[in-house]
This record gives sequence, C-alpha cells and structure tokens, in this order.
Amino acid sequence: MPCHESLAVPPPEGFVRVRMTVAYDGTPFHGFARNPGVATVQSELEDTLAQVLRHPVTVTGAGRTDAGVHARGQVVSFDADESHFEPSALSRAVNRMLGPTIAVDNVETAPPTFDARFSCTGRSYRYHIFNSPVVDPLTRHFTWHVRDRLDIGAMQHASGAIVGTHDFTSFSKRNKSRPQQTFVRTVREAQWRKSADDVTFEITASAFTHQMVRSLVGMCVEIGRHRRRVEDMGVVLRALSRGAAPSPAPGRGLVLWRAHYD
Amino acid sequence: MPCHESLAVPPPEGFVRVRMTVAYDGTPFHGFARNPGVATVQSELEDTLAQVLRHPVTVTGAGRTDAGVHARGQVVSFDADESHFEPSALSRAVNRMLGPTIAVDNVETAPPTFDARFSCTGRSYRYHIFNSPVVDPLTRHFTWHVRDRLDIGAMQHASGAIVGTHDFTSFSKRNKSRPQQTFVRTVREAQWRKSADDVTFEITASAFTHQMVRSLVGMCVEIGRHRRRVEDMGVVLRALSRGAAPSPAPGRGLVLWRAHYD
Repeated sequence: MPCHESLAVPPPEGFVRVRMTVAYDGTPFHGFARNPGVATVQSELEDTLAQVLRHPVTVTGAGRTDAGVHARGQVVSFDADESHFEPSALSRAVNRMLGPTIAVDNVETAPPTFDARFSCTGRSYRYHIFNSPVVDPLTRHFTWHVRDRLDIGAMQHASGAIVGTHDFTSFSKRNKSRPQQTFVRTVREAQWRKSADDVTFEITASAFTHQMVRSLVGMCVEIGRHRRRVEDMGVVLRALSRGAAPSPAPGRGLVLWRAHYD
Repeated sequence: MPCHESLAVPPPEGFVRVRMTVAYDGTPFHGFARNPGVATVQSELEDTLAQVLRHPVTVTGAGRTDAGVHARGQVVSFDADESHFEPSALSRAVNRMLGPTIAVDNVETAPPTFDARFSCTGRSYRYHIFNSPVVDPLTRHFTWHVRDRLDIGAMQHASGAIVGTHDFTSFSKRNKSRPQQTFVRTVREAQWRKSADDVTFEITASAFTHQMVRSLVGMCVEIGRHRRRVEDMGVVLRALSRGAAPSPAPGRGLVLWRAHYD
C-alpha cells in the first residue's frame, strides 16, 4: 500500500531512525501495545530504550500481538539521538536490562522513512498445537493442547479456501472505536504440518485483522475434529459474520514469526 | 546385566506391577528422587498415586534426573492394589491431580518382575543448546544459551572418543556414600545435530553415571569454542580425574528422552 509509505515521517534533526528485531515470551505480558497499568512489550521496550538513550522513545511494531502471544521476529522502529546511538552497545545494554523474557537483535540504522508497521509488506505467524491425549509439560506455555486426534489432511484442504484476497469479517474481532475499518486481507500462504504429535500452522499475509490467525486456527481445528466439514471454511468466510465461526484458539500457541520488508 | 533381573521382587498378593511413562518440566523440581522438605517428581507421583489408589506407593524410575532436568520418556514402576487398578481411569485421575508440570501416559500392567530401573537396558538423553549471540525467550527454560559460535564438526569428532565401553570417572560426580561405585559405562551413540541456531546432542548408553551427560556436554562445548582440542576428549577420559574436565553444562538443557526395555 504505497499511500502508507508517503505518511512516514522522517526523524527530527540530530536523530536517526533505528530498526530492531525483537523476540519475546508473551506469557507475562498483556500483549504488545502500551496499555496503562499493565506490563506490555511496548512499554518494557520504550522504558528501557529511554534509559539507555536518555530521551523519551516511541516504538512502532510490525504486529500488535495480543496477550500471551509470542514473537521470534517482531520488528520495531524508533528514533534515537545520533550522539548516543551505537548499534552493538545499544543491543548489549538493552538485553542486559530487559532480562530473559524479551531479547533484541539486529539493531541497525534504517532509512529516514522506514516505519516497522507501514513499511512492512507481509507478516508470517506460526501456531503450535500439541496433539496428544496427554499434555506435554515441556511445551505447555507455547502450544495449544488438543486431545482429539486431528485430521491434518482435512485442515490443509480447508485452508485452501482462505488463500487469496478475502473479506475476513467472520474471522476478525471488531474494534468498536473504528466502525469504518476493513477486514479485507490477502493471505499468501497457509500450511499445516505435522511431525509426531507436533502440529504447526504457518500463515503469511499482507497484514492480519485482530484475532484473525487464532480464529482461523479455531475453525481448522473444528474441521480436524470432524465437527465441521471442509466446505464449511468457505461457508463461514462468505457469511461475513463472526457469529458463524467457532471460538478463536488460545493466544499461547501463536508466534509472530517474521515481518517482511522489500 | 542379568544378575539385576533376578533381584526383582514380584508384587505382594493382590497387587499388580504397573509400568507408566512420565513427562515433566523439571524447572520447579529438586530432581526426580524423593528428598525430604523439597518438591521432587518422585514425591509428587507417589503422593498422587497414593491418593488415587488409597494405599502407600513407592515408585522406581528408569533415570534419577537432577534438579532442573526434564523428561519426555521417563518410565516408572510401582505396585497397585488390583481391586482399585484400572489403567485409563488411573491415568485420567493422576493427570487431573498433577497439573501441567507432570504428565503420565501409557499406564499398563507389567510382568511381576518388571522394574523400571533394573529392567531398563538403555537410556537416551537429549541436550539442547541455543547457539546465538542473543537469548531465545521462548526456549530459555529448556536450553543452554551459548553465545560463542560452536564448531559442531569438532564436537561431533570429539564425541567419537566416548562411544564404546569406558571408565567415565572424569565425567562423573562421585557419591561419597558409595566409595566402591564403578564409573564404567557403555555409550552406544553420541550425535550432535544443528538446525539454524538449535544445537542438539543425542546420547544413548546402557546407563549413565551422575552428571555424566552434562559433563560430556560441557567438554564438547569447550571443544566447539576451540578452547580445548578435539583430542582432549580422549586425554580427559583417560585421566580418570574429574578435575581434568570442565564444568558440567546446566541442567535445564537436559531431557531424559527415552528408556529402553527388551
């Protein structure tokens, strides 16, 4: 969407635009976006960067992950005072202060109009399911435990219906303060894989609506349990009604895997 | 070792020998073995089984994992009153009571002389390293984070020296209450694998001495960092002295993967 690019505001005089990759365990956070009174990834990052850089920092992220959702390849951008900015020193200082739930990497100077959100041309998410009668104590914070044996073939077949450009109203949580928002998105790839009891969904799209991946996973799992038919994916998609879709899958199985830039 | 088999005592009249697989997140436990005043896997299992079966239970495990060490395929044996024992009901009740850090599976009646420890003909462990300049928040409880880029080829080459029957005194923690113990063990396989930043060591042996896997991993990592030479593995092994080996790797990277029975 080139119109977004033109909105990007360059940094003020004496400042540089910085790009940084961020990984986090979402378990202790109330999502990415700053939210007064609760711990979020954005507020942890902004507070820590402000201490290191000695000026207020506002961070923009490629994806606004929900409570409990994790990231391996979240990308953020912010402006830093040139006189205090040295990539590897910043990386070391921030990682030392943040502790083990958040880690930053690949800190680098970006072009002045780079914006982690609006320059982003695609996002890849992964959703992890542990599909076994018994819970896996080792992966429980990062997987959805589904006891019923899933029919992965049916789930993959159903996922074909969501590839391409569609109105994902049925699989989106509406934001009441934004009545004009659109739910049209372009899904480039949607792939289910299985290795022993580990089932993984990999999905890449231009962008995602709120709770879109979790809602699609919830629908696929109902199909994998044979509670809904493969054809129901298209039926629910065309219904343009959130009431037509089953509950979203839990946040803990979801990881923002990679943000794509041209 | 057939002499061990003959030591196996059958269950008393009216009881059956039960075999069960156990997985656990070792993070909150002070190891497997019962230890007064601290939470251990054995005490959690015995207390829970006693409540379900309504009689005292003593559990024997294939491997006595240390504090912080995890398991996917630990096998335990115990005796159960026949009149209260039904495998799937026991499995459901125990999993409901234990919560998410321990999970049991494959509960079944075993031959009367089966003993999870003495009938076990081999153990496989896996050790996970995250090899990157930056910590991975998502796997930090289950990996050792090594920043220096490891030479996996050198580590694999060095591991050849430990395959076969050797005296592993240099890689063992001595138990002062057992001065006559032997450290001779037979390693059947020792394999390093790398996939992106994930480095895994898979080792199978007849049995392991105390801290043997962690000590071997500690040595291999020193070789992978080029702080020790490939040939030093054999030198340290033949030294028959724990002082010749580097510090053991941390427990959190280790998983008792599988117990083998004929």
